[in-house]
Amino acid sequence: MSQLRRDPVTGRWIIVNISDPKKPGDFDLEPQVKKLSSCPFCSGNEGETPPEIDAVRAADTRPDTPGWSVRVIPNKFPALTTEGNLDKRGIGLYDMSNGVGQHEVIVETPEHNRDMADLTREELNNVILKYRSRSLELEKDERFRYVLIFKNHGASAGASLEHSHSQLVALPIVPKRVKEELKGASNYFEYRERCVFCDMIAQELEDGRRVVSENEEFVAFCPFVPRFAFETWILPKAHEQNFKSIDDKKAGSMAAILKDTLMRIKKVLRDPPYNFIIHTAPLRDGGSDDYHWHLELMPKLANVAGFEWGSGFYINPTSPEFAAKCLREED
Amino acid sequence: MSQLRRDPVTGRWIIVNISDPKKPGDFDLEPQVKKLSSCPFCSGNEGETPPEIDAVRAADTRPDTPGWSVRVIPNKFPALTTEGNLDKRGIGLYDMSNGVGQHEVIVETPEHNRDMADLTREELNNVILKYRSRSLELEKDERFRYVLIFKNHGASAGASLEHSHSQLVALPIVPKRVKEELKGASNYFEYRERCVFCDMIAQELEDGRRVVSENEEFVAFCPFVPRFAFETWILPKAHEQNFKSIDDKKAGSMAAILKDTLMRIKKVLRDPPYNFIIHTAPLRDGGSDDYHWHLELMPKLANVAGFEWGSGFYINPTSPEFAAKCLREED
Repeated sequence: MSQLRRDPVTGRWIIVNISDPKKPGDFDLEPQVKKLSSCPFCSGNEGETPPEIDAVRAADTRPDTPGWSVRVIPNKFPALTTEGNLDKRGIGLYDMSNGVGQHEVIVETPEHNRDMADLTREELNNVILKYRSRSLELEKDERFRYVLIFKNHGASAGASLEHSHSQLVALPIVPKRVKEELKGASNYFEYRERCVFCDMIAQELEDGRRVVSENEEFVAFCPFVPRFAFETWILPKAHEQNFKSIDDKKAGSMAAILKDTLMRIKKVLRDPPYNFIIHTAPLRDGGSDDYHWHLELMPKLANVAGFEWGSGFYINPTSPEFAAKCLREED
Repeated sequence: MSQLRRDPVTGRWIIVNISDPKKPGDFDLEPQVKKLSSCPFCSGNEGETPPEIDAVRAADTRPDTPGWSVRVIPNKFPALTTEGNLDKRGIGLYDMSNGVGQHEVIVETPEHNRDMADLTREELNNVILKYRSRSLELEKDERFRYVLIFKNHGASAGASLEHSHSQLVALPIVPKRVKEELKGASNYFEYRERCVFCDMIAQELEDGRRVVSENEEFVAFCPFVPRFAFETWILPKAHEQNFKSIDDKKAGSMAAILKDTLMRIKKVLRDPPYNFIIHTAPLRDGGSDDYHWHLELMPKLANVAGFEWGSGFYINPTSPEFAAKCLREED
């Protein structure tokens, strides 16, 4: 069972396992992607996962059998549990609540040996459409305030299974990092009556040095202030607050630029571990004009150390101008 | 050459290498502590480092020769450079300045095969006194606003050299994470007219479940909201804003509890990689009553993944109550 706890100084939240703690001997100091004799995400092994929530599958096939191309399942080891209520409470200084939420896995392909960069544009499009439909579905649960979609690729980026998959966590709290972006964007809007991300896109396209690629509806660039070497962001060019509102045409464009970006990263950096996350506005947030959804892709090329943990300040050994040049030239 | 850059949305700062970028082929995807034929931090190899800034050494020995027990040197590959002025400026949306700062290494022992947990209390005391004297010295430079002291132990915690050492970075900016703590502590003080850390210490000592150890002047506990499994904080029991004000007696007490904590972590978790950082008030900050310096120690037992990067929310598999119990029982 997990508990949500809030730091009384910084307001940071954690999800902590209180009933079945991981013990000193359980930690693997040299993390590896698990090599299982049978992969629960492969076609034919549907019985090894919890029952599927949703799938893109052939019309004549039944749930939890082969015939799917994208499959959404509950995480077998969820960080948060679906049942129950938050039951917010305090002990002295401290605030906590029950670990209520939903943790899902989106298996991106039935084939074990293809990673996200290998998927066709159509296959990736189907994955993105599932991100959207799950976001819309989970918004109906009044307990949830945020849906975070993310992907871990490679053991040192936190992937525990090799078979290509993304994850989705529905949270009863708007995460701190999103709140910071919302606040910063709102401050900028108040001052200038413009969206800071729209201004950023305009400046990046005008400047050009940090742009990796663009298509009609999206742009990929290395941000001016990247925490990590070769960090790359993908943004819709037109102002759009919520990822969940993406239309079918834009989803196709997003699939195209995401595939292109992943292939460039894979080629230039020799298939590095990476994480990506989608930052979007909180659930049921009315039409405020000051936020702009986007995807942040962070290759895992070095270990974060004491300086970063202590300061929130990042040391990046590769300028985004140089990183974008490397990624751009890889055609 | 490095540049400081500020993210226009979140206010996050980075230090980015703009003149000599690390190239795609330069990244080691499986980081290891460098195995050098000759260790620049060993006694006898003083000529392999930049000239020493300070040292604890026998009276009859000269700088940059053997005879020292703690040695402070400039970092050979500094994240920030000592020369020049900040020259704050903007390009469109973006803010930047020159990468001015100071980056020092504190070599904790002349012997290669002893790590910090192996040092005697007296040796550790000397290290802490050097943290103090360097903090006091760097405060004189009007360009600097913060001194961050930290340690990386083990390759996956970011240590590039095996020989036991700490680092110190003088920054022209108060780091975001410290600002968050200052702000949170200040809000609490405004509401209650008490220091949030003092209240936390009182509650932890009263409760006892998360306490690892204590002595007359310090307490070590696993915080109620730990980001990482077995995260442990050390705080002076009496209210004290600045680490630099630590007196000789307290430095001795700190050496004792730090050694005790490091030994427990080493034994229980089988010498894990770890980081620690000292959070103290900014330089030249007048006697505000609402901040309380402390040391945060974070074992590196797992990789931070997309969820954490995207949310600032941490998933911790081990409750601090259980972690403290394991550490406490290891006597």
